[in-house]
Amino acid sequence: MNPLDNIRIVLVGTLYSGNVGSACRAMANMGIRHLRLAAPNIQDKDWREGEKLAVHADDVLKNREEFATFEEAVEDCVAVVGTTARGGLFRQHVKAPRDLAPEILDLASKGPVAVVFGREDKGLLNEEVAQCTHLLRIPVDVGYTSINLAQAVLITAYEIFAASGSYVPPHEKSAAAPQGLKMVLTRNWETALTDIGFMSEKESEYMMQGVHRIFSRGVQTADDASIMLGIARQMLWSHRHGVPPDTPAGEGYKPFQ
Amino acid sequence: MNPLDNIRIVLVGTLYSGNVGSACRAMANMGIRHLRLAAPNIQDKDWREGEKLAVHADDVLKNREEFATFEEAVEDCVAVVGTTARGGLFRQHVKAPRDLAPEILDLASKGPVAVVFGREDKGLLNEEVAQCTHLLRIPVDVGYTSINLAQAVLITAYEIFAASGSYVPPHEKSAAAPQGLKMVLTRNWETALTDIGFMSEKESEYMMQGVHRIFSRGVQTADDASIMLGIARQMLWSHRHGVPPDTPAGEGYKPFQ
Repeated sequence: MNPLDNIRIVLVGTLYSGNVGSACRAMANMGIRHLRLAAPNIQDKDWREGEKLAVHADDVLKNREEFATFEEAVEDCVAVVGTTARGGLFRQHVKAPRDLAPEILDLASKGPVAVVFGREDKGLLNEEVAQCTHLLRIPVDVGYTSINLAQAVLITAYEIFAASGSYVPPHEKSAAAPQGLKMVLTRNWETALTDIGFMSEKESEYMMQGVHRIFSRGVQTADDASIMLGIARQMLWSHRHGVPPDTPAGEGYKPFQ
Repeated sequence: MNPLDNIRIVLVGTLYSGNVGSACRAMANMGIRHLRLAAPNIQDKDWREGEKLAVHADDVLKNREEFATFEEAVEDCVAVVGTTARGGLFRQHVKAPRDLAPEILDLASKGPVAVVFGREDKGLLNEEVAQCTHLLRIPVDVGYTSINLAQAVLITAYEIFAASGSYVPPHEKSAAAPQGLKMVLTRNWETALTDIGFMSEKESEYMMQGVHRIFSRGVQTADDASIMLGIARQMLWSHRHGVPPDTPAGEGYKPFQ
């Protein structure tokens, strides 16, 4: 099974349904779908804000499990990861989410793992922290350490998702341009630029150094090379044949701005 | 200067002030304080929601710069990083924020760098993407790709912040326990556990293997060792002296549950 399916996001004593809704959306973005509320203390009883903010992650919200206590919400979990903003004695072994994510996934391959977030106003209580098997602290700027509940859920879920390998980064589909193609490109541009009068044949060796420098950075794929070869071809063609007679004034030539 | 001070978060055509407010908070968490709005299209004209959600990052909100167009908002920037959820031709070179963050910081050491986020409903337009020098796509689960604007800002800012080295992960302050101390610990526990009748002297060699296995994983620092040594000492003391006479019934002994 996918270890992400064994992650349980546990929100303890949450006050605002909007934060629950935003957390649902953040979870769904990161492939995590099991939400638990422990002793929820929602002040806006109608859940309207929460439903609005969950947007299309409403299944995460609807399928949430509710528990009367923290203990019950984590009872079946093989590990309980608490998030804390505070340091202090016995919290020195907290880890950053990036460092802890691989271990969380490893544990999640063995059974349900609770990742626990405290109240908006005072986080997890000491007696709740004492029940955690692991602690995690999200890195924030010392100038502004108060992080929103749903945003804390997002960063933690994002790190677990990124570590899970579920995300395949986009990659360039066009093959890298081989050196031979690049040399053809340089020669064709040299011909074209001389032909259209951008530079004299005498200047060309020097001027082409500048062009080559730009191409060597910019032309990386076969698609890139094919575009630039096409431009050189068209430069030559348009120079030799002139502007087609029915081209409106100003259309045939657009200066760079 | 800190390159984070050269990051400009540019929100284009944003519709909801709440998203601007949440973005301010996410930025402040990650040490980024310069917000620009390009052609804002805020539907809730009074900014009440935005001010509420900015919480204590209201200086980021107040100091925002507003521009009539995308072009003006990025005019002074040495690089323009567009965020896009879509792939497609000419977007194959998009990078994940973790991969692009070091380059963003490198550019930000030379001048202002715009990191641009499009509209809630349709992102950046093609003509806006065409003006970007770099493109970035946030990794999300294929099952739910629609990410909230402020959460996209958060993840991008988080990756830039993490790559900037501004975050020093928490670290254990207590020194690692040396082997000699660990051996003293094992000996003292052996004495204590035999003394209180947990095991006979005959069983002790075998039983201590289990205890040692637990301690070798759990007792890692000098502080840990000192706590466990204290417990062994107290076990011996309490066994020899008994429960103090004024202890209420049930207080002297708490079975593990």
